[in-house]
Amino acid sequence: MKTRLTEALGITFPVIQAPMAFAAGSALASAVSGAGGLDMIGGAYGDAGWIERQFGAAAGARVGCGLITWKLAEQPHLLDRVLTHDPAAVLLASGNPKPFASAIRDAGVPLICQVQTLRDARQALDCGAEIIVAQGADAGGHGEARGTFALIPEIADEIARQDSKALLCAAGGIADGRGLAAALMLGADGAVIGTRFWASREALVHPRILDRALEATGEETIRTRVADVVRGFDWPGRYNGRVLRNPFIQKWHGSEDALKLEAGAEAAKWAAAQEAGDPYFATAFAGEGIGLISSAAPAGDILANLMLDAQRCLAEAD
Amino acid sequence: MKTRLTEALGITFPVIQAPMAFAAGSALASAVSGAGGLDMIGGAYGDAGWIERQFGAAAGARVGCGLITWKLAEQPHLLDRVLTHDPAAVLLASGNPKPFASAIRDAGVPLICQVQTLRDARQALDCGAEIIVAQGADAGGHGEARGTFALIPEIADEIARQDSKALLCAAGGIADGRGLAAALMLGADGAVIGTRFWASREALVHPRILDRALEATGEETIRTRVADVVRGFDWPGRYNGRVLRNPFIQKWHGSEDALKLEAGAEAAKWAAAQEAGDPYFATAFAGEGIGLISSAAPAGDILANLMLDAQRCLAEAD
Repeated sequence: MKTRLTEALGITFPVIQAPMAFAAGSALASAVSGAGGLDMIGGAYGDAGWIERQFGAAAGARVGCGLITWKLAEQPHLLDRVLTHDPAAVLLASGNPKPFASAIRDAGVPLICQVQTLRDARQALDCGAEIIVAQGADAGGHGEARGTFALIPEIADEIARQDSKALLCAAGGIADGRGLAAALMLGADGAVIGTRFWASREALVHPRILDRALEATGEETIRTRVADVVRGFDWPGRYNGRVLRNPFIQKWHGSEDALKLEAGAEAAKWAAAQEAGDPYFATAFAGEGIGLISSAAPAGDILANLMLDAQRCLAEAD
Repeated sequence: MKTRLTEALGITFPVIQAPMAFAAGSALASAVSGAGGLDMIGGAYGDAGWIERQFGAAAGARVGCGLITWKLAEQPHLLDRVLTHDPAAVLLASGNPKPFASAIRDAGVPLICQVQTLRDARQALDCGAEIIVAQGADAGGHGEARGTFALIPEIADEIARQDSKALLCAAGGIADGRGLAAALMLGADGAVIGTRFWASREALVHPRILDRALEATGEETIRTRVADVVRGFDWPGRYNGRVLRNPFIQKWHGSEDALKLEAGAEAAKWAAAQEAGDPYFATAFAGEGIGLISSAAPAGDILANLMLDAQRCLAEAD
């Protein structure tokens, strides 16, 4: 399936795998890029050693890297290290991309900016982003309040108004071929997909957490700050993260200030649960699309089937 | 454009106009049904006299009626009066449709149930609903938390799992042909469209409120209980309503308990603002799709253009 995105990035399918923090490592990178999508290593909070190891282990695969922008601002030199790997693209999410945009562009690396609002999109266009990812609240992990459905065409209209050549990807709730086909109808050139690849054999997710998630419906997810508070992650106030509900989340959601007071003890319990894969206390950063997913599979198969389904949807459309 | 929905309802286009409380009266009914969609009179909170007048004024047009289910339970006899008008369909939203389903079906009137969760959808299927409307949080007016994008295919999958003949409509964020095309890709048979018809010449919306809304982006909307608290509308806790932000909403959102204490004085001010069309205090129940709308138009033109755009999107898809 050719779109402007596949041509711009030299990939077979218009699908970018979301750079999911802690979950998107080298195994997923090799699988997704080998199957014709663009893989993004989850550089996230900027653990330089971990990022180096993933690039090393994925050697030979053409992969990109995603970074959390407000966190990158705390150690801006990390960007130079990422750029030495000649990444297929760099995705900046959650924060002002301006301080980093020129270094990425000067390195000849495509700049992808993930945005949650029209205002963010304008900022990304001002920075010369080649690709805008319009991420709706339906997504797993960190984001904001706007729903995917109307956000995509609203940003598509803005790109058109500015007569910009920037490409548009949709993110948030896209877990199968229907979602990709719908994203294209809404004006996107492709999709960024997280949760569907999170629920793959190659993602760095504890099998017990994954098993629980595969049973969940979309309404068993919730946007919350609990997982950040317990980890001591100081996310800017406009962002929160969509996770699977569980007893730990239910206990503290809406009582984040109380959680801060007990953060030491709770953090230790939470970390142990994460390590052990205890789905009642550990956090699964899954989006509403989890309700469309009932089994894990190799990421390459996931991508191949998703594309077949999308093509069938589009072929039956007319 | 033929879908299972157009065949089931005997309409030209797979579009149902949302039964927007206070905004969807006889003028909109005549315009939308005349243009080939299914119009739904906004029966809403159950003002019997108002509903009678709209059916009377729309005489000759084939129109349906929407009712708020938890409110209908307070005056169940209202349903009999609605059914005497031989409505094209009855849409029940927000509450348990079971006490009313058999009367509607016995009258030979199609039962449409608007739902916000997979659980609601199962309940609607149990009641024998002919049409399920999967309404996402992106929508204007009352609803819940789940985003439109992943909710539609998740409920489509449930209908398929149950081997049900029920049809599926998508609602929430659909304001143009791209949205309708996307809804069809996601597995819907058609769409329920509110905000785009709210911003039409025939809707019962004060022109000053409409003018302000036409300038708004999708992120200038918010889901809140403020408009219900000030009106003294006792909505069940799971629902809130998406409205345009303005100084009144910004002042009280998150301080609803304080608003209750001042509800008398604030209610008088709010009602006066609503009457005068003061956009800084009056409430506009607009969805995120408002960011896709820059001008009002006759509802018939809106529907015709929406269909042309949808058909073009679908034709270019393959």
